[in-house]
Amino acid sequence: MSLIVKKFGGSSVANAERVFNVARRIIDDYKKGNDIVVVVSAQGDTTDDLIAKAKEINPKNPSKREMDMLLASGEQISISLLAMAIETLGCPAVSLLGWQAGFETDSHHGISRIKRVNAERIKTEIAKKNIVIVAGFQGLNKYDDITTLGRGGSDTSAVAIAASMKADLCQIYTDVDGVYSADPRKVPNAIKMDEISYDEMLELASLGAQVLNNRSVEMAKKYNVELEVLSSLEVKPGTIVKETVKMEKTLIRGVAKDNNVATISIVGLQDTPGVAFKIFNKLAQYKVNVDIILQSVGRDGTKDITFSVPLDQGQIAVEAIEGMKEVLDFKSISLNDSISKVSIVGAGMESHPGIAAKMFEALYDAGINIHMISTSEIKISVLIDAKVADKAVSAVHDKFLG
Amino acid sequence: MSLIVKKFGGSSVANAERVFNVARRIIDDYKKGNDIVVVVSAQGDTTDDLIAKAKEINPKNPSKREMDMLLASGEQISISLLAMAIETLGCPAVSLLGWQAGFETDSHHGISRIKRVNAERIKTEIAKKNIVIVAGFQGLNKYDDITTLGRGGSDTSAVAIAASMKADLCQIYTDVDGVYSADPRKVPNAIKMDEISYDEMLELASLGAQVLNNRSVEMAKKYNVELEVLSSLEVKPGTIVKETVKMEKTLIRGVAKDNNVATISIVGLQDTPGVAFKIFNKLAQYKVNVDIILQSVGRDGTKDITFSVPLDQGQIAVEAIEGMKEVLDFKSISLNDSISKVSIVGAGMESHPGIAAKMFEALYDAGINIHMISTSEIKISVLIDAKVADKAVSAVHDKFLG
Repeated sequence: MSLIVKKFGGSSVANAERVFNVARRIIDDYKKGNDIVVVVSAQGDTTDDLIAKAKEINPKNPSKREMDMLLASGEQISISLLAMAIETLGCPAVSLLGWQAGFETDSHHGISRIKRVNAERIKTEIAKKNIVIVAGFQGLNKYDDITTLGRGGSDTSAVAIAASMKADLCQIYTDVDGVYSADPRKVPNAIKMDEISYDEMLELASLGAQVLNNRSVEMAKKYNVELEVLSSLEVKPGTIVKETVKMEKTLIRGVAKDNNVATISIVGLQDTPGVAFKIFNKLAQYKVNVDIILQSVGRDGTKDITFSVPLDQGQIAVEAIEGMKEVLDFKSISLNDSISKVSIVGAGMESHPGIAAKMFEALYDAGINIHMISTSEIKISVLIDAKVADKAVSAVHDKFLG
Repeated sequence: MSLIVKKFGGSSVANAERVFNVARRIIDDYKKGNDIVVVVSAQGDTTDDLIAKAKEINPKNPSKREMDMLLASGEQISISLLAMAIETLGCPAVSLLGWQAGFETDSHHGISRIKRVNAERIKTEIAKKNIVIVAGFQGLNKYDDITTLGRGGSDTSAVAIAASMKADLCQIYTDVDGVYSADPRKVPNAIKMDEISYDEMLELASLGAQVLNNRSVEMAKKYNVELEVLSSLEVKPGTIVKETVKMEKTLIRGVAKDNNVATISIVGLQDTPGVAFKIFNKLAQYKVNVDIILQSVGRDGTKDITFSVPLDQGQIAVEAIEGMKEVLDFKSISLNDSISKVSIVGAGMESHPGIAAKMFEALYDAGINIHMISTSEIKISVLIDAKVADKAVSAVHDKFLG
């Protein structure tokens, strides 16, 4: 008998038929004698519909506290319907809102962090043999106000419960059946992994693989919660995410593509000390997340700096730099928003120096030009033109894993 | 400076435009220096939409606890949108769910009674000069589970806050601009009343006038909360409901019609003791609400009993009686579901014995046949054919108030 936490996303409970599907999956494991806690997101497009309602009232700047109050109603609907469905199928269930389930958060409305999960109520309901259905994404701050964790927060809710209750397994149900070595819709011979380490998963998630929310993987790593990513539609094993993973013959875990990238080039900067500091300090003030930075020596005692930022922060970054014209002497600034980042990830990479060369060879063979390169212990990323990104992913994937 | 509780129904906040209308009404009174607590129902058809969702899961018997969890999300949406709108218009506002506002109820899910309103949080927000927006219809039981008060419960929520905080006035905004001597859509010369007593309002509400929820009037009477029924669309005084009302020249307050009536006639009962007891005891077991009872002596040592019940309980009542054939000897039973109850209400009636005769005269002049009659200290009701009910209301209204 195990304690299993299961998380289902909004599309898994989008209508009555899917709610019953999810209910049956839950009941299968319950009837095997397991204790079950389920975390659910809001149904289908509910959150988007609620945001649209708020925009009708205030398109630009609705109160963050009231947004949380509004959005938290979405999970309230899905948890009650799922509990009803389970009861209709003959098993005992009880739904709990974030605050009832003991989610204590800080007060950063819209992007709250979980401080603690006081799981007493959940434990009481488990002891009564109830299947416990918890609203993901939401909690309560110290003023007794409703907070939300931000998009993707339900994954984090599930891991937080699993950590707090020392669950045996935390299953994240998605519309794919596991973690693949590349996007299986784009790369036909992508390989499903049986296991992957937290660190590898973190790199893949942040690189746009979009299987698991990054905060949830960080939390799972911190509290050593074993995760399983699996299909909400088919009954078959998924991919286990845990601390150490058995070595396989491939050194590369996966290839990921991220289109949410823009690059900014500042050309003809005076080559004097402090220029880079001034630029990136200003960008930090504007809360721009800079990823890869490249500095090159230009002509006539000038230099050029190119850096990448998330796509939606590109314009802000350009405006921030242009506003420094008086203190920063440069010739021109340009924004390129047709950029993709393609990355390979693998924990074995560090001890094998030939990996980067092999990746560049694959891109060269495919005729793809590399704009920028970045490496860490377990990944190598290149920035390339967005229009050849899918081709690049296939070429790199086939080179290592084909 | 006064403390005013205001209640707005679902149609008053059905869309963004109406939410802003309500926000402006509230702000007008706030800017006069009043402390304002607002109780809101769920938007427009939200509650019906949520019920439809539950019926997709379980058409017959969804869990009552989970229904309350589900339905309570409706007000969560409307309170947050209204608070956003008030803030957008430049005034401070904060929304509170039933449990945050201190509504403690019993555990009868779907029809909970308010045990106590612990208004500490509301007082704290008022002290911060916030306009407080409270979710009507909902509370929390001693197990920390969400409960609802049943349809029309938001009126009761508003009165409960007014009672708990000793508010100066509790304003109930509706789609009519006050309480009329008859339905103004049917009776053109119906008179709007400036004032009406709690008892008169109770009789009118229970007789189908449908302006105020009965439980709210009972609670207002118990705690002596002054109510005002007024228009959510036009800015003008409504009708005040309070304990004692100045005598006016008219003895009759109003004429009400109730179509939710059926009559059942049991013909040819043995004229032996205990027959009535057996019948009405059985109906009580089936939770049928019997209103008017008429017993007449029949022929050959038999008697007939006719009684009225709510329309939707007619069939249940007939089946209950037919199931007694073995212990109850009667010739036939019939159901008449084309019946209306027309009533006149007025506190001055008791001391004026001619009132009933005047009502019957009006009906006689209009050629309307009376099936049954019932009287109390402040009302006289007759049951007549449904198809002549509007004609009867006009005739009686014009006789007394025309």
